[in-house]
Amino acid sequence: MTDLRRVGISPDFWYPVALSREVPKGETRAAAFAGERLALYRGAQGAVYALEDRCAHRQVPLSMGVVEGETLRCCYHAWAYRGNGRICQIPYLPKGGERPPRGVRAYPVREAYGLVFVFPGEPEKAAATPLPDLPEFASPRHRTMTFSRAVHCHYSFMHENLLDMNHQFLHRGVIGRIQPKLLGYDAGPQSVEARYLFTSGKGKKDFGAGLLSAKGPRGSKGSDVITIRTEYPYQTLRLAPTNTELPAFSLWAAYVPEDAEQRVTRAYGLLMIAKPPVPGALPLAWPFIRRFTERVFAQDRTAVEAEQRAWDEQGEDRNHEVFPLILDLRDVLRGNGAPLPS
Amino acid sequence: MTDLRRVGISPDFWYPVALSREVPKGETRAAAFAGERLALYRGAQGAVYALEDRCAHRQVPLSMGVVEGETLRCCYHAWAYRGNGRICQIPYLPKGGERPPRGVRAYPVREAYGLVFVFPGEPEKAAATPLPDLPEFASPRHRTMTFSRAVHCHYSFMHENLLDMNHQFLHRGVIGRIQPKLLGYDAGPQSVEARYLFTSGKGKKDFGAGLLSAKGPRGSKGSDVITIRTEYPYQTLRLAPTNTELPAFSLWAAYVPEDAEQRVTRAYGLLMIAKPPVPGALPLAWPFIRRFTERVFAQDRTAVEAEQRAWDEQGEDRNHEVFPLILDLRDVLRGNGAPLPS
Amino acid sequence: MTDLRRVGISPDFWYPVALSREVPKGETRAAAFAGERLALYRGAQGAVYALEDRCAHRQVPLSMGVVEGETLRCCYHAWAYRGNGRICQIPYLPKGGERPPRGVRAYPVREAYGLVFVFPGEPEKAAATPLPDLPEFASPRHRTMTFSRAVHCHYSFMHENLLDMNHQFLHRGVIGRIQPKLLGYDAGPQSVEARYLFTSGKGKKDFGAGLLSAKGPRGSKGSDVITIRTEYPYQTLRLAPTNTELPAFSLWAAYVPEDAEQRVTRAYGLLMIAKPPVPGALPLAWPFIRRFTERVFAQDRTAVEAEQRAWDEQGEDRNHEVFPLILDLRDVLRGNGAPLPS
Repeated sequence: MTDLRRVGISPDFWYPVALSREVPKGETRAAAFAGERLALYRGAQGAVYALEDRCAHRQVPLSMGVVEGETLRCCYHAWAYRGNGRICQIPYLPKGGERPPRGVRAYPVREAYGLVFVFPGEPEKAAATPLPDLPEFASPRHRTMTFSRAVHCHYSFMHENLLDMNHQFLHRGVIGRIQPKLLGYDAGPQSVEARYLFTSGKGKKDFGAGLLSAKGPRGSKGSDVITIRTEYPYQTLRLAPTNTELPAFSLWAAYVPEDAEQRVTRAYGLLMIAKPPVPGALPLAWPFIRRFTERVFAQDRTAVEAEQRAWDEQGEDRNHEVFPLILDLRDVLRGNGAPLPS
Repeated sequence: MTDLRRVGISPDFWYPVALSREVPKGETRAAAFAGERLALYRGAQGAVYALEDRCAHRQVPLSMGVVEGETLRCCYHAWAYRGNGRICQIPYLPKGGERPPRGVRAYPVREAYGLVFVFPGEPEKAAATPLPDLPEFASPRHRTMTFSRAVHCHYSFMHENLLDMNHQFLHRGVIGRIQPKLLGYDAGPQSVEARYLFTSGKGKKDFGAGLLSAKGPRGSKGSDVITIRTEYPYQTLRLAPTNTELPAFSLWAAYVPEDAEQRVTRAYGLLMIAKPPVPGALPLAWPFIRRFTERVFAQDRTAVEAEQRAWDEQGEDRNHEVFPLILDLRDVLRGNGAPLPS
Repeated sequence: MTDLRRVGISPDFWYPVALSREVPKGETRAAAFAGERLALYRGAQGAVYALEDRCAHRQVPLSMGVVEGETLRCCYHAWAYRGNGRICQIPYLPKGGERPPRGVRAYPVREAYGLVFVFPGEPEKAAATPLPDLPEFASPRHRTMTFSRAVHCHYSFMHENLLDMNHQFLHRGVIGRIQPKLLGYDAGPQSVEARYLFTSGKGKKDFGAGLLSAKGPRGSKGSDVITIRTEYPYQTLRLAPTNTELPAFSLWAAYVPEDAEQRVTRAYGLLMIAKPPVPGALPLAWPFIRRFTERVFAQDRTAVEAEQRAWDEQGEDRNHEVFPLILDLRDVLRGNGAPLPS
């Protein structure tokens, strides 16, 4: 059986590679998908383009270039490209030289949810492949907190981390002792969904944690049902609180490999929080929620990066997984993935 | 003949891997022996345990875990281990998963001389293998200065450095010009012992050097007999001064490879100094002796790390050694060593 | 056809490896040519010597050693070398050891133009191989600005950068928009020479640029003829201004590989500027010219290092060069080069 950490992510989906605000009009930005370097740029009319980040002439990154209207000019010898990757000008084209190349690869691009998505797979599949559907993002009853962070591990560790809620011990200093109980789970060829009951135990708790959990900011007791779902290649987490004074929220996450070996992942997250009845309460709570989620994420990162380092040293996956739904998750990630270039 | 820098140290000895005070009660500490990662922890009753530093579940370092009584709990999913490496609890053990592993490797541990020793070799040999015998350590007539430092070279360079006293030119700025004279040496299958006569020459000298050498702090002349012995795998240096106002001292050193290629060594040293007749003189001299030894060690480190870098670049040992006792030392280190994992 | 970036530079030429002032009397300096480490030292009588930078005894760098008269003593066990590389003293030479080695390799050395040149190729070719001839360096009508900087790329990228003046777009922020026009070029087995006409266009311009270009510091218009020549292995650039109030200048450059893979190059440059009629004008302009050339060089470095990174990632040269004289230049560099050690 193939080592899961050697399974590449399938390129035939839409992956975020930048936040929209990271690509202002008339500017470029370097991005990457699984070792493919991308030059993003936003033309004068507002559209974002994604080209292979190598000038066809001398391989210098096009992301070091200059946007002129809807075209991108390489910084070195000023060759100009259209958004479809075709070369439209070589300022000094000489006679007697070699025939110039036609251009570079261009990637389908879409913007949604404040993110720039590219389709790194077979371009003809792009149109038929839907973007993730996140109705809460645009809903006036929700507000969204956006995350983007590099994590030094294979994307599969991220999926396993979130889906196996028995790792709450890791967060004991932030959310207190929690005993998650698995209520049930479903697995299919593209997805695994698990439902947990969270009951707060003892232990000190981050203030922001109270704002996002069953116990509530005022310490009232309760329990939450949390539903986590990997729907290849994305992952979601939903909280439906039993304590009605608390906001429901959902998290959408995509884990995008940056390097060719897929051991560095950029995690994009959209945390969509239902606005509570009291106006102004959510903006007030916002910085606390941000701080809480940053602390939790920092602990998760420590664990998954330690897993990757162990894999790097051992040269293979020596995990002894005992949790059935994680075994099913691994099958989903293995079955939908793509071979890594050897 | 095998390249000496490719000979691993024999694991069938007791090696220090931490200072005792680096492992307080209820805490963990990561250590390493020749690429094997160790999780040290001290239980509630004061004993130190040494486990393989990988949780059997997902290979996360157990040294990131939490001590509970005499057990160690992994930080991630809270699996708990006994000091013998056996798993004693998986808090959420599910039905239908894979059978959990029994545990991880545990290493024999002993504490002595303020050091935590482990036995990385075949465990059944541990009981019959003695710790080094250092009667001066506990003697009321001596006081011990302890050293622990990483040096980026193979352990053999450390042995050769100390045993070949012709390298005093390296320390000319600290101890002045010294012309060491080899009085004689003995070599056996496990040991080489050399006796040198040190006569001080010209040149400026560190104040601390005077406190530890024949010339004496007041500049009186004299000569020292220094005896250096590699008794595999340890090394000692003894000074018996001819000038009776000076303290005799002895140094015990162990060179412990940290990485699998054994190109990073942690040097542990115990410098046991005889208390002089005047009460309070040794505490007064203490910081100067510390500074002097640090300066000498820094110079030695520069040299042996340069040797390792040359080896790394040349890919083999190109030394032209002309000093017979060093040739014998190499035979001892080669003959008692172990093959490196390829 | 061999990948140009895998072609080593020919060792059978004189290459600068240090500035003369970097090797004061009685001191040593580490240098390198294509992975060969050199210990330079200047003896008491003023001559510079270049030895292999490894003591024959234990391979410690001789550049860490001590100059004594015309000899160099290793810092570790004090073996002493003559400038011809022969060992002249081992202070403690024991009986019964291995026969000591005779010495280390010495390189022919010459000093000129404020640079220390060595001849890394076959020593018997050194005498018949001339140093570059730079009459302007000693001329009272010129003053020379000297450059020495490490650039992380193969030397061939440096030649291509300077010879293909269509890269002026890279410098648009410093020298304004310039449209260079190729007037003609000649290529031979050891050389390529190109002549360009530079006409200033729009765009902001560094003040120092005006001091070195046709437009002049006062903004008067004009055009320059620039002649660039690769005469293996060196490169020169000459400006003969049409605007007579401007100084003519010439640049001589050598690109010296430092590492064995020849992906790090030290660029040495001598910018020889004709003194203008007004006395004191050139000293006044000096810091501006220095700043301008530093800015231009920093931009070139960005481009050539990006090229090298692309090559490293792609593992081969994927350039699509369309400029005929660069294709000829590549033939010159390939035809005169040497195989890299595999």
